[in-house]
Formats: sequence, C-alpha cells, structure tokens
Amino acid sequence: MKKVAVRNIERADSTVIDGLSQLGVATVHEAQGRLGLLDPYMRPIYQGARIAGSAVTVLAHPGDNWMLHVAIELCRPGDVLIVGLSAANTDGMFGDLLATSAKTQGVRGLVIDAGVRDVADLTRMQFPVWSKAISAQGTVKETPGSVNMPIVCAGCAVNPGDVVVADDDGICIVPKETAPQTLQKSQQRTNKEEDTRARLAAGEMGLDIYQMREKLTAAGLEYVD
Amino acid sequence: MKKVAVRNIERADSTVIDGLSQLGVATVHEAQGRLGLLDPYMRPIYQGARIAGSAVTVLAHPGDNWMLHVAIELCRPGDVLIVGLSAANTDGMFGDLLATSAKTQGVRGLVIDAGVRDVADLTRMQFPVWSKAISAQGTVKETPGSVNMPIVCAGCAVNPGDVVVADDDGICIVPKETAPQTLQKSQQRTNKEEDTRARLAAGEMGLDIYQMREKLTAAGLEYVD
Amino acid sequence: MKKVAVRNIERADSTVIDGLSQLGVATVHEAQGRLGLLDPYMRPIYQGARIAGSAVTVLAHPGDNWMLHVAIELCRPGDVLIVGLSAANTDGMFGDLLATSAKTQGVRGLVIDAGVRDVADLTRMQFPVWSKAISAQGTVKETPGSVNMPIVCAGCAVNPGDVVVADDDGICIVPKETAPQTLQKSQQRTNKEEDTRARLAAGEMGLDIYQMREKLTAAGLEYVD
Amino acid sequence: MKKVAVRNIERADSTVIDGLSQLGVATVHEAQGRLGLLDPYMRPIYQGARIAGSAVTVLAHPGDNWMLHVAIELCRPGDVLIVGLSAANTDGMFGDLLATSAKTQGVRGLVIDAGVRDVADLTRMQFPVWSKAISAQGTVKETPGSVNMPIVCAGCAVNPGDVVVADDDGICIVPKETAPQTLQKSQQRTNKEEDTRARLAAGEMGLDIYQMREKLTAAGLEYVD
Amino acid sequence: MKKVAVRNIERADSTVIDGLSQLGVATVHEAQGRLGLLDPYMRPIYQGARIAGSAVTVLAHPGDNWMLHVAIELCRPGDVLIVGLSAANTDGMFGDLLATSAKTQGVRGLVIDAGVRDVADLTRMQFPVWSKAISAQGTVKETPGSVNMPIVCAGCAVNPGDVVVADDDGICIVPKETAPQTLQKSQQRTNKEEDTRARLAAGEMGLDIYQMREKLTAAGLEYVD
Amino acid sequence: MKKVAVRNIERADSTVIDGLSQLGVATVHEAQGRLGLLDPYMRPIYQGARIAGSAVTVLAHPGDNWMLHVAIELCRPGDVLIVGLSAANTDGMFGDLLATSAKTQGVRGLVIDAGVRDVADLTRMQFPVWSKAISAQGTVKETPGSVNMPIVCAGCAVNPGDVVVADDDGICIVPKETAPQTLQKSQQRTNKEEDTRARLAAGEMGLDIYQMREKLTAAGLEYVD
Repeated sequence: MKKVAVRNIERADSTVIDGLSQLGVATVHEAQGRLGLLDPYMRPIYQGARIAGSAVTVLAHPGDNWMLHVAIELCRPGDVLIVGLSAANTDGMFGDLLATSAKTQGVRGLVIDAGVRDVADLTRMQFPVWSKAISAQGTVKETPGSVNMPIVCAGCAVNPGDVVVADDDGICIVPKETAPQTLQKSQQRTNKEEDTRARLAAGEMGLDIYQMREKLTAAGLEYVD
Repeated sequence: MKKVAVRNIERADSTVIDGLSQLGVATVHEAQGRLGLLDPYMRPIYQGARIAGSAVTVLAHPGDNWMLHVAIELCRPGDVLIVGLSAANTDGMFGDLLATSAKTQGVRGLVIDAGVRDVADLTRMQFPVWSKAISAQGTVKETPGSVNMPIVCAGCAVNPGDVVVADDDGICIVPKETAPQTLQKSQQRTNKEEDTRARLAAGEMGLDIYQMREKLTAAGLEYVD
Repeated sequence: MKKVAVRNIERADSTVIDGLSQLGVATVHEAQGRLGLLDPYMRPIYQGARIAGSAVTVLAHPGDNWMLHVAIELCRPGDVLIVGLSAANTDGMFGDLLATSAKTQGVRGLVIDAGVRDVADLTRMQFPVWSKAISAQGTVKETPGSVNMPIVCAGCAVNPGDVVVADDDGICIVPKETAPQTLQKSQQRTNKEEDTRARLAAGEMGLDIYQMREKLTAAGLEYVD
Repeated sequence: MKKVAVRNIERADSTVIDGLSQLGVATVHEAQGRLGLLDPYMRPIYQGARIAGSAVTVLAHPGDNWMLHVAIELCRPGDVLIVGLSAANTDGMFGDLLATSAKTQGVRGLVIDAGVRDVADLTRMQFPVWSKAISAQGTVKETPGSVNMPIVCAGCAVNPGDVVVADDDGICIVPKETAPQTLQKSQQRTNKEEDTRARLAAGEMGLDIYQMREKLTAAGLEYVD
Repeated sequence: MKKVAVRNIERADSTVIDGLSQLGVATVHEAQGRLGLLDPYMRPIYQGARIAGSAVTVLAHPGDNWMLHVAIELCRPGDVLIVGLSAANTDGMFGDLLATSAKTQGVRGLVIDAGVRDVADLTRMQFPVWSKAISAQGTVKETPGSVNMPIVCAGCAVNPGDVVVADDDGICIVPKETAPQTLQKSQQRTNKEEDTRARLAAGEMGLDIYQMREKLTAAGLEYVD
Repeated sequence: MKKVAVRNIERADSTVIDGLSQLGVATVHEAQGRLGLLDPYMRPIYQGARIAGSAVTVLAHPGDNWMLHVAIELCRPGDVLIVGLSAANTDGMFGDLLATSAKTQGVRGLVIDAGVRDVADLTRMQFPVWSKAISAQGTVKETPGSVNMPIVCAGCAVNPGDVVVADDDGICIVPKETAPQTLQKSQQRTNKEEDTRARLAAGEMGLDIYQMREKLTAAGLEYVD
C-alpha cells in the first residue's frame, strides 16, 4: 500500500456544503440519482446531529489508529474525517482525546467503518460520530496507511474533498464536482415535497398525487372487496 | 404472486385492541402461550411508543415501496401497517411523506421488515415505526405485491385484521379470533404480577414465591459453600 | 455440566470497586493491558449508566432462566449479575420482576449474553442492563445450570468475584486479584490524559505530544502536497 | 402454544410431487410467481441432493428436539420433515440416530431452521438436510411444541401436506392445492428454457431473444464507446 | 497483556487423546455434560477431517500473526494449535508456509477464531483447519500476544494441554484432568447408541425406546386425528 | 444514476492476466501491498476454480438483473463479469441461462455481490462464480444501472478493465496500470516462498528464517518454562 499523506486537497465551496447540510441525507441521496450512500450498518452514536463537510479520507489497518493522528493535523475548519479500513474491524479507534484535537481543528464530525469509544464524552462534547460499532477496544500505532487518497468506506467510494452529508438516516457522499448541481436539485426536491406534504396532510391520496392508479392496473394489480 | 389489494377486512373490537395496548408486548405474548412474536432484530426508531392496532398487511418486493401507497388508502383509523418482503431488504421504503399520509388516515404506526428513513422527522411527528434498518436508500415503484393478504413478517405469520401490539420490547401478533381471550388472560397475568412485584420488593425470594426449591433439588442442583 | 450453586465467593475490596466505576471501561481496559473486554455486540438498554460491582456468574441454557432466580438469592449489595449461555440465544431471560428482586438485594446491574425484556420498565427503574438483544420471548425453568462457577460471557472468561465495570462503551472484567493495581494504573492514566487533553485543546498536535513524527518517517510514511 | 400432534394430514398426489422434484427449486419458485422460498441462510449439508416430499411440519423450542421424535412416528414414505422454531436457535437438534429412524419410515429429508449434527454420518447415509447451522450442541426433551400445525420456517409459512422442494439452490414450498398447476407451469417453463439455452449457446444475445433493446432505451439506458 | 510464551505444558495421555478422536465431537460433547463446544460459526476448510490433540493455545491480535511463529516452535507431535483473538478479526493469519512448518513439527491441525488462506494448498496437504473465515488478507508481525496461557476461542475457555477434538460437526474442548473419564463415558455412549441404532433401523420408535409417551402426555401433548 | 453502458474498455495484456491467474489471490494481494481484496463473505460456489480476467463492471439494483444481459453482450473472451449492487441484496441474479450465454462469449467467470442460482448446473458447466449468497429468488428487469463504469464490489473499488484474480481464497483486484509490476512482484514472492517452504519442511524455524527472535525480545516477549 502507498503510505502517503496528501497535505492539500481541493474542497467544494463552503456555501454549497452548508446548503447540503440543511437538506438531509435522504433528499440529497435522491437528488443525485440514488448514489453515494454508505451501508446502513453505519449508525450515529447519538440522535439529532446533522452535518456536512469536506472529506479528509483515511485508510487505516485493523486495530491501528495511527493515521487518525496524521489526518487531524491536515484538517481545516469545516472538514469531516472519513475512515475506511483495509480489513473489517470493530475496535475503538477514536475517543475523547482525538475528538478534543479534531474539534480544536474545526472538524465537524467523524465517519468511521470501525469502532469508536468514550461515547458518553463525545455526546457531552456534541462531537458527532457515525460508526460501525461502539467498542472500548484500544488500538496500536504500528503500520501507516494513507490520508487524502481515494478510499472505500462502508461500501462507498470516497475521494478527498468530496462532501460528506450525515444525519440520523445515515451518510451520503456528494462528489465535489457535482456538489453545486446536487444542492440545486435537492432544493427543488425539498420545495416540491413541501407542497406534496400539505396535500397529503389535507387527505389527498398519494395514488392520485403521483397518478399511480392507471399504472397499477397496467402492472396487474387487482382490487377485491 | 397474486397482485391483489383487498379493500375490506374484518377487524377486532376496538375496546379489545385498546385494552391490549395497555398491557405491553411481553405480557400479551406470555398470555397467548408464547406465540406470535416477531424476530428481535425488529427495533423501534425511538423509545417509548406503545401501540396496538388492526393489521393492514402488505407484501412488497426488495427496493419497491409501491404497495405502501396502495395500502394507506385502504387504512382506517386505528390500523397499523405491517409490511413483509418477498426477499431480504434494508432499503428505506417509508419516510415522512408516507407518514404524513398515514397519520392523516389515522394509522397508529408501521412495522416493516426492511428499512425506513426520515427518522428525525418521524420522531418529531411521533409516528412510531418498528423496522429492520434505518436507511436513506430510495425505492422504485415498479412491481405490485399485495395488500391485506396473509404475509410473513420477521418470522411471524400475520393475517389482515390481526391485532398488532408493539412497544420497546418488540412486536406481537394476536389473531383477531382469540384477541378477547388473550386480553382477558393478559389482564389476569398483569394483576397477578402486581402482587408478585410487591412481595419481591419486600424481599421475598422468587424461589419461595414460585416454590422452586424442591424442583431444583429434583433437577439435580447442588448448593456448595 | 456440573449443576452447582456456590453460596460464598471472595469479592474485591469495595473501595477498589467504587474507584473503578469512576474511571470508565476504556480507561480500565487500557490500564490492564487491553484485556478483559466483552464483545461489542453487548449494548446497554439505555444511555448513561456507569457501574462497577462484584461478578455473580451464571451459566444458563438457551430459553431457560431458572438459574437467574437461584443467583439473585446469592447476591449481596454491590454485586453485578453476569450471565453466560451454553449456546447462542436471544430470548428475553430477564424482566421487571427479576429486576425488582435484584434491586431489592442491592444488585447494581445485569450483563447477559442473551435477551432482556420490559426495557421501558427497567429504564424507569434505572436498573442498568447490558445485553445481546431486546426480546419479549419468554423462557422456561427446566434445566439447571450453575451459579458462581467460571463462565465465558460474550467472548470473555469471568470468575465469580471478578470486578465487572460497565458503561456506554461496553463491559470490562477486572480479575479480583489484580483489581487494586488496575485501579492505580487507571488513575495514573486518567491523570496523564487530563494533561494531554488540555494540550490538545490548546492546539498542540498529537504527532508532537506523542513524538510520532520520526517513527512515521521510519515506518515509510511520505507527505506530498 | 397449542401442544398438539395431528396424526392424519392431506398430501398432494405422489406423481405431482415426483414431477416437482425433477424440475428444481429455481424453476418451481418462478412457476408459482416467485413465492414460497425459504431464506437463503438455509444450506444443504452436502451438495447434489434434490428432493420433493409432503411437509410434516414441526414447531420446536430452542434447545429442545422432543417434537422430532413425535413427528417421525407420524411420517409416511415420501414425507419431508420441516421444522420451525419458536425463537432463533442453532443447536444440533437432529443427528444420525434420528436420521436412521426417519429413513426407516421412508422420510426423504429434513429442513430445519436450527442446527444439525453428525453431518459426516448423514452424508454417508445420503440423508439430505437443509439447515441454518451445523452444531454438535445437544438438546433437551422438556417442552412440547406441535406437529402438523401451520408453521413459519426460515421466513416462509408452511402448512402440513404442502410440497417441499429442495436442492442445492435452497428450498421452495408449494401449497398442496396448487401443486398440480405449479407442476404444469414448471414443465412449460423448463421446455421453453431448453429452447432459449440452445439459442444462447449458439451465440444469440438475450437482449434479442427477450426483445429488451427497445425497453432499455425507453428506460433511459445510453450506450457510449 | 502478559507477553509470555510458556515452553512446557502438561498434556493428556496420548492413548486417551487418540481414543477421543475416534468418537467424534457430538458424542464427546454429550459425554462431558454438553460443555466445551466452540461456537458453530467455526467451520472446517474441507470435509472429512477428524482429529484430537493437545491444545497449544495462542492469543493473537487482529491482523497480527506473529505469535503463530512462536507457537509452532513450542509444538510437539500430536499437538493442535488453537488461536483466540483479542478482538474480532477475519484476516488470513495462517497459510501454506506456516502449515508446512506446523506439519513438520507433527501438529495435527489448527483451530483459529479468525481467517485462514491458501486453503487449496492446505486441502492438498490434508492439513485440517477450523476457522471463522477464509480470507487472503495478510497480517503484520508487530505486537506480541501469548502462547500456552489460558484463552477464550469462539466462546469457549481453553487451557494449554486440554484436548481439542474436531470433526465436521465442529470443535469440543476436553479438560486434560477429566479426559480419561470423558473418554470412558463417550465409549459407553457410543456402545449404547449402536444398540439404539439397530432398533431404530428395525422400525422401533424412539418414543418407545426412550419411554417418552407418558412424559409427553404429562407435559400436555394432545394427539388429534 | 448515470444509466450508461460503455462498449469499449482498455484491458491489460493477456500474458500478464494469465500470469496472474497462476499465482493465486494471496500472493497477488501481498505483492501489491495488501490492497484490492474483496470482503471475505464472497465465496466460490465450488472448490478448485482459479481464474484471472479483465473486469467488465456492472452496477445493478436489488432484485433486478437487467444489466447482466446488457453486460454479457459487451464481454470479450477472457473477461470476468463483476457486479456491484446499489443496495445490499441476496437474490439469485444469475443462473444457468446467463451462464450459457456468458460462456459462449468467452467469459471466464462471475463475481457478484448478491446471490446466484442453478449452482448445480453451473458446477456441472464448470462456470465459476464467487457470490455473497446462493438463492433461487428470481429478479425483475425494470431499472437500468450501468456497465463498464467504476463500481464498488464487496468493499473494493473496481474500474473496468482491471484484472480480477479469484480462487478458493477469495478475489483480488489488480489495477490494469500496475498489473505488469504486480505480476513481477508476485513471481518474485512465489520464488522466494519456494525456498522458504523447503527450509521449513526441513525443520528450520520461521523464527530463524525471518530473524524474529531479537525483535520479539525487543517487543517484550518473555519465555517461561
């Protein structure tokens, strides 16, 4: 493996990033054609966090969190750490000390395809983490991986500088190149949904709003009493 | 597969249903002879919900939530949507728009052997959901399944109109035919437990209350110091 | 299997136990050389509990909670019930009645490699439980196991009287013989971490505090711009 | 739970059953509209078995194989034992002694949503088993379940007398009422597939045989060089 | 963790060990009271192996196979390597080179709660392995663990010198102290089973042989036609 | 999602590909720095296959195998089909008809992060498949995905034309750009291992061959008798 840490990466425009954080993972994921979602085993350590930020990508080895120390130094305010593993692992690779350092650097949160610990402290600090597991298992610092190289995290390819959007529904990756268009489509989608929500709340049926009745008949659905 | 939506189903008496909702899943499950429990991988999206309602059953295909739109129209106040899948799936088949429509119809909650999304919104709306996963993954509307036909959901057979009882412990299905007797037995059980609880709180041993000491000796248990 | 219940066990000093409860699982686990952690599938039924106590060990059979009744009688104030299974199981072996009895005996909590039920009641009672599953599935009382014999629980060997430390990060077992030294090392670790935390919060890099830069270069890490 | 063993059940016609065994699970499952498949975690203990038979249904409890003894007596030549569990379990509920007895009764195989043991012996005897696990873990005989009542096995509802079709691809349940039509449709499907296979082997494209090109364009697929 | 390798361990008598290897895991596990079985996710890499040997125990870290090199030197003819992990891992910690060395030392097989690779070679060499996974993922040699200290492997406590019995049904640990009695009970059990097998093959019912009919009635089983 | 099928892709040199197929997954994976391995839940449907070929990449949706028909037409002799899913799925997306067509096109095998069926036929045809599951569950042809676009399959990023190497140990992806160097390093590794194998077979210890003794002492390992 290339043991490389890349210092400077291109990031998306901060207005775009902040716009995406308002709209939520489900909407953004739909708006970019249902791509970029991490596997649903990734769960937030506490409810209610909602962030977007620039991906600082980390490739780490099972039971070894050395690269996280390297990565934090390379983070800028508004970044999100996202960590892929070279093989499946649930060890607690990140805790309150790393979170203190990350927060000081302006990091908005962590997405890690492994375990995390000190979750009571992290919740108190309101430092949001999406992880595969919660585990107190400590890690060594023996084998370098990489920082800011392309990775796969929880089934999804991530490039450094991509926008990481995360909330209670999970995590979605928006390529930095298409982030502005995805923001625009997400906003359109949200506006349209508001209208639909009002009609549904007034008692209209989705079958009518989405004009599904004919298609259902064509697809062979039969109603019986 | 029969692509059928049944409009009218028989439901249990609403007094019985509301009575069952008071007693909780563990008690009801015991009262009907330890039958009717869904697999424990089914979890509520937020703590503290406690419902009972008439099952409107849905059979859906992986990645396709079309039948949920069909089912909501057929729901009446007091119903619970319960969704089985033709093959294992964790996609987010239900979100805040469908919940808005379901709530408007008087639906009390959703039980789904797949994923759900917009969980922050659903929690805010206090629309309770028990699901296999939380996932923002969107779904298509391509292949009809069925509504109000017998299904299997999370390892349990469910008929339309059966009573769905759900709380933080999980989900239990009470056949509509035996719902009145199950309510009665559940109440008896609850009354008896109150007495036992008081005796245990006063320091009596379960070994004495349940007269287990002799049976334990007969079964070969030996005490040593 | 030996069907044995041992009445009297040696326990660690209560000052040591209470000291360990202040320090948390991650710290204690590190302080004793990263040993004694239960598998991370064990999760608390509610957030925020933090306990330590003397292990009263139980070996139970799948779907059979008889030994829990036997064990509760043998508990003293400050004990923690810890239950291993002879084969994998997720049934709800413990609920609010057993919790009432356990609490009356002064038991501080339960760790069980199976399921638990009545979790809303247990939360209300603030009786903490770490379990493999939440399930309303009831159990029989047919086959004796053992109490206060060595067990394996969630991948970890536990002897009666060992100190069980548990919080939101998981569960760690401290052998009673080495508990005083582990407490001392945990406290040293905590003191040292406080200093490090302040330096990290002030913007110092972990790479400098832990003097990692040279080692990283020696291990082959290359920085690029 | 009703502790009941039903002695006499209706079975499908043996010619139909034997016909279905020739055609394989994938074909039969397709022919009946993609219904009736058990979850894919069910796996054969050895490759190459291919059976069909009348379901003698068993509901058993975790760690308890008593009902298997009851069921074997009620089997007739051509039957298949199919076992659902009241809660998830992987114990070895069936071994070479039960297989000897089952084989003597003319039972064609076993489908069990739990574990099996003595698999080397069962392979030597060529007694086919589809199970969730292989485990030497022994079981008790303490709590009756039922025989020849409706069950759920590995996610699928099964009625006594239904046709169980099983091969290396898994297990499919054919309701006895529709077994003759399903056989007919399966044969038609097989005949048609033979023709398609020849055309594919000759180099024709599925895209042409199934006339997919236009539909793909309509659905938005774009070819680029 | 104590980084210790113990050179000399006590082993059970070789006649006892070889006797146990003849009888199989299911029988031995029953004979010692249904204790000592490893979790059923442990599977042989090829069918048909059947071994028993003295446990040389290894504690290794995720992604690190250093201790296997240390352990092989300490093995004697007739030993079985058994490896527990400090945290869950599926990396391929053992392959054809280590197997060549182990075989040369007279090691009879490997039991490892992690991954193994070169399985085609190991099969050709007929060096039997029971593992949690098959994975080509390589490992580092960075952090010492221990050899011949007590470990937990796949849910079971193992002491150095215990007898490891393994076949297609899984793995069972027999404490060296009780190995002679377990052998004797296993042989008695096998003799008795031979008689039962003959009676079952002749058409007698288990219900009669084990005299279950009365007990079933007492337990509430009802026969209906 | 871009619904695109790319007709022409760059492939690695066929001599390089065939060279890699000789060396096996474990060796190739080591030679390229322990990168490119698919998750170990991917398993071959039969033992003994050993292939390498150019990746024709497919992105498919859960329960929809339409893109496989599109992909087969675009395959050339020596290619390997490799299929990623937009969300987790175990349906049987590939069977004997598709295999007949693929084989006719000269395809060497299939790697699919979903299910496969007709495995008895595929084994007879000796068409090797590595999959996540075996399942008879049929699929629809409703929603286009993509062919020959970058995908993630079982945790690994794959570009069209990359070399797919697969055997009993799993699957490794070699980027086409670095395939010649990886072949060279793999061959060097293999040559060196042959020498080591001979020395180990002659009784030399790995501890001496790899000069580990000093490092072990430095790392704190202590030998006791």
